[in-house]
Amino acid sequence: MPHPKLIIIGTIALDNISTPSGTVKDALGGSAVFASYAASFFTKPGIVSVVGKDMPKAHLKLLRERGIDLQGLQHVKNSFRWGGSYQGDMNEATTEFTEVAPLLQFKADLPEEYRDAAYVLLANIDPELQLKVIAQLRKPKFIALDTMNLWIDTRKEQLMKAIRQADALIINDGEARQLFNTSFIRHAAEKAMKLGLKYIIIKKGDNGCFMFSRNKAFATQGYPLRVLKDPTGCGDSFAGSIMGYLAMKGNTDENTIRKGIIYGSVIASYNAQDFSLNQLKRLNQRLIEKRYRIFLDMRHFGH
Amino acid sequence: MPHPKLIIIGTIALDNISTPSGTVKDALGGSAVFASYAASFFTKPGIVSVVGKDMPKAHLKLLRERGIDLQGLQHVKNSFRWGGSYQGDMNEATTEFTEVAPLLQFKADLPEEYRDAAYVLLANIDPELQLKVIAQLRKPKFIALDTMNLWIDTRKEQLMKAIRQADALIINDGEARQLFNTSFIRHAAEKAMKLGLKYIIIKKGDNGCFMFSRNKAFATQGYPLRVLKDPTGCGDSFAGSIMGYLAMKGNTDENTIRKGIIYGSVIASYNAQDFSLNQLKRLNQRLIEKRYRIFLDMRHFGH
Repeated sequence: MPHPKLIIIGTIALDNISTPSGTVKDALGGSAVFASYAASFFTKPGIVSVVGKDMPKAHLKLLRERGIDLQGLQHVKNSFRWGGSYQGDMNEATTEFTEVAPLLQFKADLPEEYRDAAYVLLANIDPELQLKVIAQLRKPKFIALDTMNLWIDTRKEQLMKAIRQADALIINDGEARQLFNTSFIRHAAEKAMKLGLKYIIIKKGDNGCFMFSRNKAFATQGYPLRVLKDPTGCGDSFAGSIMGYLAMKGNTDENTIRKGIIYGSVIASYNAQDFSLNQLKRLNQRLIEKRYRIFLDMRHFGH
Repeated sequence: MPHPKLIIIGTIALDNISTPSGTVKDALGGSAVFASYAASFFTKPGIVSVVGKDMPKAHLKLLRERGIDLQGLQHVKNSFRWGGSYQGDMNEATTEFTEVAPLLQFKADLPEEYRDAAYVLLANIDPELQLKVIAQLRKPKFIALDTMNLWIDTRKEQLMKAIRQADALIINDGEARQLFNTSFIRHAAEKAMKLGLKYIIIKKGDNGCFMFSRNKAFATQGYPLRVLKDPTGCGDSFAGSIMGYLAMKGNTDENTIRKGIIYGSVIASYNAQDFSLNQLKRLNQRLIEKRYRIFLDMRHFGH
């Protein structure tokens, strides 16, 4: 069996989603799905997740065909399900329902082949499970951790413990303000550095993102889309792209992460153009490089 | 008398402002003030505006000492006054009161020396007055027009007429969506090009800005501040910086405008650090270039 360079822990979900552009039912979703699919443009990641017997075989086949390793899947009766809707501010979903029982059964045991992974993305999931994964790693080179307001509200202590063991925190701007109790992302970044993080990547939805390290800041706008159907999974595909790119390059210097952030912005912007994985399924290297070059030009001013 | 390369029409105001950081009363403000002060770091602009006898002499002296030409001022009894407050979203002011009588007396007559100006900033003011200025110009090279939701609501026809005669429209993202009746700034930009504009610069407050031309997009984030006391005048100082930079360079190619936008972002970010013109008064070339270089590094990823 191959030893994936990048492993991703997160959810595999069946999503019901409603946006001004339409609705989908039982669509493939979840943080590990978007993140690993995005990462698969750069490397062959392994997923650590839990999945129910109700998950259509075609969904798992789709992932397998992208070279995503599924031996880290734990099989249970029902899949995690999430219902969400977007109105007005497309950067924030309203949760309509969640069926979390499968996540409570999830043990987050790593297959033997995953314990030597150098790159680890702890995608959005209970920090308790993120900590379990960290404890099983033998020689991680770069651990990135994503989270959400739910865990800040309900699992702050475990979340902080997990963050202290990560290299990079990937978080929404509102959540960064909440977690670090400040109005200014600059202060949030300074507090993040004091926890021992090397990087904090602050996502601002279609307003782009910032990355702060100890002495530097990096920033990009989002791609100005003509169509935005469903932002679900944009944050996950952004994080997955960055980690896939780092794993491909075998390098975690700041400049490589900056390039990864641009690839992440490219792939996340495509993701928003259609529901579920529909747009990522149409994506290829040529389209990715095309939009990457537009990002280059959007930033250039002949200095 | 000198012939200013750049003239700026807009307001000179006495502002009462309240933000989470404090309040000021009778502070120097107005679109022409912030724009011309910012432009004065690059060129010696002339102002076309109306001012009351109640305006403290020190305020006008401050402008004169920056090399700003005041022969385009019309003197009336009372100054334009604006009261505004910011809560929560610092990108949007709530207007508490306006005293607009002076603006109704304002004739917007250009001194003879101003009619040959190559660079013209029609800062935020009644579009009727912007049109009057345009009609007096002999050989404008580059006209930029700023506006606000009030004029979209109450003077749409005159505003559209003025926009059709401008080279660049500088506008907030919410106002761009309102003016062009779309959710997507990309669509707004396409509609702007159809009106004959060469550029539309869409301001997103502390989320930075986009510039669109016929075939290209340019984008930057705002500077990540540690302190934000009062955003009043940020949009005006941004526009004034761009136009001052173009006038200094004597050039309106797209790359020069892109650099001007970065200078505008630098100066607007400083402006937000204190009330009224307090921070701009402390500014110098060294501080401007220092933050400009940070913007360069924030954008760089070794491509």
